[in-house]
Amino acid sequence: MSRKIAVIGYGVVGSGTVELFEMNREKIEKRVGSPIELGYILDLKDFPDSPYADKLVKDFNILLHDPEVEVVVESAGGATFAYSYTRALLEAGKSVVTSNKELVAKKGAELLAIAKEHNCNYLFEASVGGGIPIIGPIYRCLSGNTIQEITGILNGTTNFILTKMIKEQLSFEEALKQAQANGYAEADPTADVEGHDACRKICILGSLAYGKQIDPEKIHCSGISKITMADVDYADVAGYVIKLIGSVKQTNDGRIAAKVCPRLVPKKHMLAHVDDVYNAICVKGDGIGDAVFYGRGAGKLPTASAVVGDVIDALRHKGTNIGVYWQQAEDDMLLPYKDDEAAMYVRVKGEDAQKKCKELSEMFGGLIFLDRRMSKSIEEAAFITPFMKEADIDKSLAILSHSLSIESKIRLL
Amino acid sequence: MSRKIAVIGYGVVGSGTVELFEMNREKIEKRVGSPIELGYILDLKDFPDSPYADKLVKDFNILLHDPEVEVVVESAGGATFAYSYTRALLEAGKSVVTSNKELVAKKGAELLAIAKEHNCNYLFEASVGGGIPIIGPIYRCLSGNTIQEITGILNGTTNFILTKMIKEQLSFEEALKQAQANGYAEADPTADVEGHDACRKICILGSLAYGKQIDPEKIHCSGISKITMADVDYADVAGYVIKLIGSVKQTNDGRIAAKVCPRLVPKKHMLAHVDDVYNAICVKGDGIGDAVFYGRGAGKLPTASAVVGDVIDALRHKGTNIGVYWQQAEDDMLLPYKDDEAAMYVRVKGEDAQKKCKELSEMFGGLIFLDRRMSKSIEEAAFITPFMKEADIDKSLAILSHSLSIESKIRLL
Repeated sequence: MSRKIAVIGYGVVGSGTVELFEMNREKIEKRVGSPIELGYILDLKDFPDSPYADKLVKDFNILLHDPEVEVVVESAGGATFAYSYTRALLEAGKSVVTSNKELVAKKGAELLAIAKEHNCNYLFEASVGGGIPIIGPIYRCLSGNTIQEITGILNGTTNFILTKMIKEQLSFEEALKQAQANGYAEADPTADVEGHDACRKICILGSLAYGKQIDPEKIHCSGISKITMADVDYADVAGYVIKLIGSVKQTNDGRIAAKVCPRLVPKKHMLAHVDDVYNAICVKGDGIGDAVFYGRGAGKLPTASAVVGDVIDALRHKGTNIGVYWQQAEDDMLLPYKDDEAAMYVRVKGEDAQKKCKELSEMFGGLIFLDRRMSKSIEEAAFITPFMKEADIDKSLAILSHSLSIESKIRLL
Repeated sequence: MSRKIAVIGYGVVGSGTVELFEMNREKIEKRVGSPIELGYILDLKDFPDSPYADKLVKDFNILLHDPEVEVVVESAGGATFAYSYTRALLEAGKSVVTSNKELVAKKGAELLAIAKEHNCNYLFEASVGGGIPIIGPIYRCLSGNTIQEITGILNGTTNFILTKMIKEQLSFEEALKQAQANGYAEADPTADVEGHDACRKICILGSLAYGKQIDPEKIHCSGISKITMADVDYADVAGYVIKLIGSVKQTNDGRIAAKVCPRLVPKKHMLAHVDDVYNAICVKGDGIGDAVFYGRGAGKLPTASAVVGDVIDALRHKGTNIGVYWQQAEDDMLLPYKDDEAAMYVRVKGEDAQKKCKELSEMFGGLIFLDRRMSKSIEEAAFITPFMKEADIDKSLAILSHSLSIESKIRLL
């Protein structure tokens, strides 16, 4: 007897899923143990020339009320229709597989609880890191660990831009134009360059690792649009590259510290070698130590790879909830980022900048001054603070800012 | 009601498993959904001072005939007792979790079939890459892909030695001594340095990816004991590092090409940045493209991390075979390595070596000659052949060997 699946949204992810599924149909059916039928593709657009034109439907109720449909791929995106569709499907006991990071980050706890209650599954490997296996490994292979920290390069667009800035000395604006010309960045690149996309992803990873929903709107998020060639140059001479990093960890008092921001990454760290549109996620656990997962963080077939893997898993676990689960957030669960500690790279400008910074070095408990190759000036200084509470760094910098302009502040990894 | 597990072999892996399990007992029991009882530890030695002295037993039949024992960790090693114990346990419907690469590489097909028949599981995440999640990701997350190739740094000891040779210009012998002093290499380092350990691991990965048992004794395996500083130096100047690489791929005619040997890895390849005792595995699939999995490939707690993850998975799937499976090998399934293609780095010595090699360049279809920093001599030459059938490379080298001594032959990655 064949098993029936359906796809919502025939865009990049939806069509990639169908394509990869047909490429490897024989292997996939062998893995599942029975033939698989693609029952429906739900999309409001028409695709008269598609080989799947006969599968296209416009009415969600057709999927919902077909008792043979076991698993639905939600690749519609957004958190409106996708949310109500996903709820309805899970309540009907149908598993939902998604790449929709917005919905998982916003409504994961609720949807996972519905899946659990109805003995089906809500799976979202494709929502973080494209095709890179990361949700499954954290949930399954590393389930004997206490996860101490997750740090990752989670957005390919910004990593492409930063790679161009570092390796080809392009300005942010020039690098962004190249990313747009290559189709890696959208016409409005805000969601990528300001870190919002990475923010949703680190919240999903943190929710999974710590069992509590982390709201992307409640964590510190800053992007890369203010990174200059001066920062890239100072970092390079000091042995660092600048990367946009999402991070989440649990503090000793059980609170969760999560943020997205550019970081100075030491060149010998594995994440420093992750270039172009690639993503990588470093997971630190009390058993495994550091493990890194690397690959293409986006794209049609890589994302489809994660979706199809989840579809197979959902089919193999019919009637059984796999147990991926996190709870609603608690009040005061998040550590305010100013209470977290960091070492900070700071670049300042103004008259006698070097001299003034050196005079204030002791107040910080000792600063490490950096040098650069290009455009040296006594009216510019850059230094790294000791590892200390961010609020305390800001207090000291406030004094500097009376007479100097603080151009850049970038945390070290 | 509590669930009962047992451990066979209270050495590094067995004791690490118990240690990590106790460290994270609360989380693990939450994940499994019930309390877990460590029922027995089977070991022929006495451990009177162990906090688990009351769990220690010497008679295998106690575990086998306790109907409450659901999952057994086999960390005895070897393929004699471990084999008969594992068979008996699986036939009794108890799942077995192991780090025993020798047994999985030798008897995987048979044991996986027994597990399938008896609705239990034989799981072996810890057998490859220590704690690095790789078996689960290949089997589950990448199950929608056709795996095109797997290449990996699978042995920490040899990677430590090569790192010392590359970064500190130590000779092989000096680096081996350091590895022994650090406890990374055994008094008899043969299994590591001659590639046998890596060979078992790539055979396990290949068996999993292609569904057919690959016998470690039937594939080409060469180690690193003949790598010299001259080779390291030539490689460095040409933009490569030397790494011991296990690789497996499926050829167009459906045969499997697997081997373990040192390779010249381009410095911009992710595997070139994997240093010291770390391991990394690169999986290329038709959906995902390249994905890399990196971490500590050995050690007590990293290996325990993989074991405990599998124990949780086995407990959660009681009475259901997860479906990890491969068949017995077929005749003629393996491509003889001389029929495979490679570009080869070659170093020769003898009178007028440079001149003689240049005269023969055309016979190869053009050679790339390499330069080095140290001890330049006209009596030594090094070159890279075109990408061609290995048998053809050997034919041409045979002519060179009439008048020159062929000191090194290392394939490029």
